[in-house]
Formats: sequence, structure tokens, C-alpha cells
Amino acid sequence: MSDTLVVGLDVGGTSTRATVLTVTGQRLGTGRAGGGNPTSHGAERAAAELLTALREALADLDPARVVAGTIGLAGAGRLLADPAGRAAFDRAWHDAGLRCPYAVHGDALVAYASGSAAPDGTILIAGTGAITAQVHDLRLDRIADGHGWLLGDTGSGFWLGREAVRRLLADLDIGRTPGALATAVLTELVGSAEIAARPRATVDATIQAVTRRAPVELARLAPLVVTAASQGEPVALALIAEAATHLAESVSRIRPAEAVTPVVLGGGLLTADTPLATAVRTEIARHWPNAPLHTAGDGAAAAAWLAARDLPEVTDPAALHARLFPTTP
Amino acid sequence: MSDTLVVGLDVGGTSTRATVLTVTGQRLGTGRAGGGNPTSHGAERAAAELLTALREALADLDPARVVAGTIGLAGAGRLLADPAGRAAFDRAWHDAGLRCPYAVHGDALVAYASGSAAPDGTILIAGTGAITAQVHDLRLDRIADGHGWLLGDTGSGFWLGREAVRRLLADLDIGRTPGALATAVLTELVGSAEIAARPRATVDATIQAVTRRAPVELARLAPLVVTAASQGEPVALALIAEAATHLAESVSRIRPAEAVTPVVLGGGLLTADTPLATAVRTEIARHWPNAPLHTAGDGAAAAAWLAARDLPEVTDPAALHARLFPTTP
Repeated sequence: MSDTLVVGLDVGGTSTRATVLTVTGQRLGTGRAGGGNPTSHGAERAAAELLTALREALADLDPARVVAGTIGLAGAGRLLADPAGRAAFDRAWHDAGLRCPYAVHGDALVAYASGSAAPDGTILIAGTGAITAQVHDLRLDRIADGHGWLLGDTGSGFWLGREAVRRLLADLDIGRTPGALATAVLTELVGSAEIAARPRATVDATIQAVTRRAPVELARLAPLVVTAASQGEPVALALIAEAATHLAESVSRIRPAEAVTPVVLGGGLLTADTPLATAVRTEIARHWPNAPLHTAGDGAAAAAWLAARDLPEVTDPAALHARLFPTTP
Repeated sequence: MSDTLVVGLDVGGTSTRATVLTVTGQRLGTGRAGGGNPTSHGAERAAAELLTALREALADLDPARVVAGTIGLAGAGRLLADPAGRAAFDRAWHDAGLRCPYAVHGDALVAYASGSAAPDGTILIAGTGAITAQVHDLRLDRIADGHGWLLGDTGSGFWLGREAVRRLLADLDIGRTPGALATAVLTELVGSAEIAARPRATVDATIQAVTRRAPVELARLAPLVVTAASQGEPVALALIAEAATHLAESVSRIRPAEAVTPVVLGGGLLTADTPLATAVRTEIARHWPNAPLHTAGDGAAAAAWLAARDLPEVTDPAALHARLFPTTP
């Protein structure tokens, strides 16, 4: 029985991570490679990163021992609908020496499973973007937001960054001395906090600094909001409160008001100890006072757990989950 | 004295218009050409459209009679700062047979002058974008918004279109039957009002229909909001009210609370008899109850008036304005 292994992969936009587990929860190998999101990088490139991470994780192990695998990735549905993409992933799987089948799940399900073993619950993710999903029987069910920066992702890192710039531009329009957050944003964007004699020149320089980059890069300003809020800056605190309200509103679009299932918080803005994470916890606790609140953890381990839980050797999937994620209640 | 002529040009993103006036306000010639905004079309192309419009307006006239000219265009400051762009405009002016100097003003000033002859006042424009400016001594002074679709233009046609799509996406997330506006938006974007068995497929189709085009094309949905609001559709009415609040807020960034100078409303959304124009009039009257409210008119004639008012022959510029724009009080 200790011969049996499972593989989990968490394929993200900036990194791909692989974990090999025994069915008792021992981590025997881990691997890491570059961003492998097939939607943004193309399936061939994503499959190449997948293979790199798999080979590293399996370096000291016999791949024939692996009996099940799960890949979590954003845009899983699009990959499954694309025969060429699916074939590229099949080849990478085979080239790593794996002969077992594998399942593909959305990254939101894997994030949920890294925070809770309960079959039903809610996952709320806020990083560069923002998305919420209901999980039913450990599958993604209804989804809210995740509409992208142009039409949604309200309360996300992009949203925080854009709103911080908008507050700065309003200060410049009004002729109000920018506060600490606006000053930090201006310095980050144009390299100086000095306002031109004709403030419209500073407005134009700010807009040009933003529009020179891809819009989604506004998310790079979110840490300025988080830091300023931690220091009690009033504009930053207001933006954090507004973001938390928006994120809770997204959850309420799909989560019943009387639900007592777990809520898992994922994404860089909610897994770190940020003022936004605190504000979102407060909002969720206000709407759903009886819901257990968890934080997402190691996605590759969660993917491996999703692969393991259906094996006959795993008689208590919840106990295995508790061993893998000891810090989540 | 009746030999003396002035030329005005209104250079917009979709059309360029020229008007030739006598100093007593007789329109002797008009010309029209394609979009000539040098920022979006390049100065060479803009200058070519300028020449076409000028030649048409001067077809039956001796260009040597023209003693002054004004060109109004968006991004006037950028044109003046660019020697190559300025040279292209100089050549077009010369090629049209004109030997007098010409002034270049922002389109916002020309829009203001098409609604009021008062030297001081406010212009609020809402079309695809939204911008507000204070006018002092018939020159643009402080500006609010006009920050572009990514960071501002709050309450504009772009904003109305984007918000209409966001309301549709929220309906689909929640599983709420879309109302009349959301149905119209869905039909416009994906060609059918039918919602897929898996509503997320309709969400994805909607997002893809938007992201296939340039973001600013969301402004094409604004007429759906205007029409729905005219028919009393509640979501559309709420969006119109919100847009009017945003536009008035932009004005209040730069217009003193106690101002009694005129406010001119310009741009396609405010010069037509739309629910937004009505709502903005109400908002402006609420903030500045003693301010005369005017609607922008013929920009080319206003540009010509700006050219004429400094001539010794024009002893009463306000009277000339009243003859040119008889419907504005």
C-alpha cells in the first residue's frame, strides 16, 4: 500500500507546482516550473512547464507507482474543450513516465480543496482578479464575477490599483494636496511626488504612465493600498472597506443567505495577513455568522488530495486532508 | 467691411466641419470631411481632412478675404507642442489659399463658445468620454475628468455601456431573469436573448463579445441605456441617475459652489433630448440654482465666432453670438 502514489499539479499564471504524495499523506517529491496557464501562455508552453514540474517532483521516484493525478488550472474548461491542448497535456503526462489517467479541475476548486475537505462550500479568490464559486460535491458549481478587469473583478488587486489612481486623479482635478496613498501612487507611476505648476500636466503624466502598460498591470499598485491601509491611511482604508463589500456582494450572488458550509479565502490578497483579508473575514462573518472560515493553502497538495480521495486505499479522505493541511481547522 | 470673412473649424473624431462667416454673422460657406483628431488619426491625416473641409467651405469664395481663423480640436495642446503636426496644419491652411494666421483651441472651449458668449463659465461634455472645464476669459482653465475610459470618463457613453454589461453579468451570476435593458444588451452583444442551460456559457459569450472589440466600443451600448430609460426601464433609469450624479461631481471638482456663470452642456449625450440631459440639468440646477444652463450648438460656427470677436470690425461680439446662435438664451 505504501507503494501507491498520487500526483497533484497547480498550474498558475506565474508558476506551476507539482507534488507527489503517498496515500497516507507523505510528501515524497515536489517540483516547480514557470507559469503554465494555457489560456495566457498557450497549451504547448503550458504543457512544457507541466513536464518540467512533473520531472522534478518524480526525480527520485518510479512514475509507475503513481495511480492517479489531478491538474488544477485556470480555464480548465477551455483546455478540455480543445483537442490540441488536451493532446499536449497528454503528451507531457506520458513523457513524465506516467501511465495512469488524470483529472483536470478549475484552479478555484483546487484552492477550495486546499482550505476545506467538506464536499460543499464556497471559494472566494482575490488576487490580480476576483472570482467566487460554489462547490458542490467537490466540483465547481455556480460562479460569480471572474469577469475580467474590463467588466468585473470587483474588489481585486486590479480594482484596488485602478481606484487608487482614480483617487489620485480626483485630488489633482480638485487641487487637493494628495495624501499618503496618492503620493505613493504618483511616485510609483511617474517617479516623483512633485505636482507640476499646471496640475493637468501631472494628470496627463499619470494617465500616460498607466496606459503605457497593459491595463491589468494596475494590479501592481494594490500592495501600495494594502501597505497604506496597514498604516491607517484613510483613503486606503476606505478602498479596502469598499473592496471587501464588493467581494462579499459577489459571494452573496451565489451563496444562500442561510448557508453554514465553509467559506475558503484564496488568492494573494486574502491568503496573506492583509487588511483586506481581515475586512473580508468580517464581511463574511457578518453575512454568514455560522460559516467556518478557512484560508487556501498548498494547491499542488490539494490537487494530489483530490486525486487520492477516490482511491480504495483512502478510507478516510477527511483524515488525509487534516494530515496534509494541519493548520486549517 | 462686408468683404471681411472669418473661418472656423471643428475637428472631431468622426467628422471635421468648416464654416465661413461674414463679420455680421452670415454663413457664406460650409464644408465637411472625415474625422481629423490628430491624436487618434495622426496629424497628416487630420491635416488632409482639414484641407478637404476648408476647400468645400471656400469653394465659391476668395480665400484672400479671410482675415482670421480658429481651429477647435481635441488634444489641441499636443498638436501645438508637436512641430511636425503644426507644420502639417500650416500646409493645409496654406494649400486652402488662406494667408491669415489661425488660432488652435481645445474642442471643449469651442463647445463652450457654441453655447455661451460669456467670458467665464463651465463646459460639461458627455459623449463617448466625459470631461469638464472651467472657462476663464474665453480660454480653458481648470479641467476635471477626461481621464479616458480606463481611469475615468465617469458618466460617459463608455461608462453607461460598461455598466449596462456589468448589470447583465450580475443578473446572469445571480440567476435572475434579465430585464428589458439587460435583454437588449445581451441581444446586441451575442445576437440572441436566450440564456444557455449553463448560464456561465452566456456570461463567457458576453465577455468574449465585448473583449473582441476595443474597450471604448462599449460606448456603442449607451443608446440602449438611453432608449430603455426613456421607456421607464428601472435599471436604465438607475444608471442614468448615477451617470448624472457622476457628471455633476466632476463639475463640482472645479466649479465653485457659489458660481453663477453659465454652464454649457455638450457632447452627444447632453445635446440631444435624452433622459441623461434632463437628469444632468436637474443635478446642475440643484448644485448651482442661479447658473444659466445652455446647450452646445454648431462648433464650426463657434470657432468662427472666436476668430471674429477680436476683429476691430466686431464691436459687439455678444450680439454677433446671439445672431449666430439664436436658440440659446
